[in-house]
Amino acid sequence: MIHDPRTSIIDKRLENVKNIIAIGSGKGGVGKSTFSSLLSLFLNKKGYKVGLLDLDIYGPSTHLILNAEDKTPQEEYGLKPVDINGIEFMSIIYFTQNKPLIMRGKELTDTILEIFAITRWNNLDYLIIDMPPGMGEVLLDLIKFIKNLQFIVITNPTKIAMETVEKLIRFLKESNYPILGLVENMKNKDGTFVKEKCKELNVKYLGHISFYEDIENYYGIPEKLINQNLDKEINQIVSNFT
Amino acid sequence: MIHDPRTSIIDKRLENVKNIIAIGSGKGGVGKSTFSSLLSLFLNKKGYKVGLLDLDIYGPSTHLILNAEDKTPQEEYGLKPVDINGIEFMSIIYFTQNKPLIMRGKELTDTILEIFAITRWNNLDYLIIDMPPGMGEVLLDLIKFIKNLQFIVITNPTKIAMETVEKLIRFLKESNYPILGLVENMKNKDGTFVKEKCKELNVKYLGHISFYEDIENYYGIPEKLINQNLDKEINQIVSNFT
Repeated sequence: MIHDPRTSIIDKRLENVKNIIAIGSGKGGVGKSTFSSLLSLFLNKKGYKVGLLDLDIYGPSTHLILNAEDKTPQEEYGLKPVDINGIEFMSIIYFTQNKPLIMRGKELTDTILEIFAITRWNNLDYLIIDMPPGMGEVLLDLIKFIKNLQFIVITNPTKIAMETVEKLIRFLKESNYPILGLVENMKNKDGTFVKEKCKELNVKYLGHISFYEDIENYYGIPEKLINQNLDKEINQIVSNFT
Repeated sequence: MIHDPRTSIIDKRLENVKNIIAIGSGKGGVGKSTFSSLLSLFLNKKGYKVGLLDLDIYGPSTHLILNAEDKTPQEEYGLKPVDINGIEFMSIIYFTQNKPLIMRGKELTDTILEIFAITRWNNLDYLIIDMPPGMGEVLLDLIKFIKNLQFIVITNPTKIAMETVEKLIRFLKESNYPILGLVENMKNKDGTFVKEKCKELNVKYLGHISFYEDIENYYGIPEKLINQNLDKEINQIVSNFT
């Protein structure tokens, strides 16, 4: 196998990042981007140095949630992430703009490697990566190129979602990738289905986030996104993996 | 370019299918599988001959919605789709079972081609294809191998979803693929945002489906899935593209 020189560049770019956490689901539409944003905001407020990287190839949206639409990473011996209330933010949207993003495997890998090779993160306690749904190229490439990747898996309380999420968990476990635990998002009624699934799959249940019907109203206003109740819920989740 | 002999086999397998409609979204979690199932059930009830093909590589779920879990396609000079209340049903789940499905581009293409090359549809008025979220390999391959493919695009009423859905629509339009129109799913309040977007993008607004909180209770019971209200809504949508 030919050595890819980008591997060592990427190692160097990430050498001052203490924890790299990929937020994955397998299933789309379960609130992965919202949770990635909330988690970054929360950790930042707690005094941690946080980076957020949006790799949701087919539907990047954290830039909308965090109001980073009009900002641009600056060129400076590489690319400096955008600053959002102290969070270092980078997204595939800056590379693709809003043009339709149709790429085959090889191109996808190249774009992802390019983002990692070019982005200059500062010293970070946490780099949160918002993953695309599905278990395709991006997952395989991340696992290959990023050392010390840890996963938080997110689902909603439905059986249909959990069916797909379970596949991702089984794959990660079979491949011996560390899973910090599972988050149950959009919980709108009592029920222990997800908790029981966690036991069955031997994955830690990190906690839940309630269904907030009006959360969309606060997209674009990051300082108002976390209300008192949400703060408690995320605190619970974070205390279970830090 | 080398001629792929599977192309002509696929043409032959589909020669008695009058309309091939791909249900796509770009965005996950907007109810694509539910809509594909409901549409198939409705058209079947109206007397059309209907096939449903689930190609949602990373999260096939129509087999759960339609209670086809315990059935298996039968080998007979190819594979005969499963019969569900008169609908001819085929899913990628029969090829992958519930194992985690991690495939690179080339393997994905091969699996899709295999399904098309092997499945023996009868004479069909409509073949409905439930697409995966995103705009990756599956979309590119379908477009390449399946002639006369038409698209129905589905979204929910949120701006975040529409942002991604818009990319799919722009891609399809730029590539001159026919879009029958857009369906607004999970509509839970008044609002004309999606309708206005349709005007802006020059795509037909086919209609909406309300947010039915209890629809999950009817997954697995296809004969009870379409209630009176849903029947009206789907009728409206279908009347706009037939």
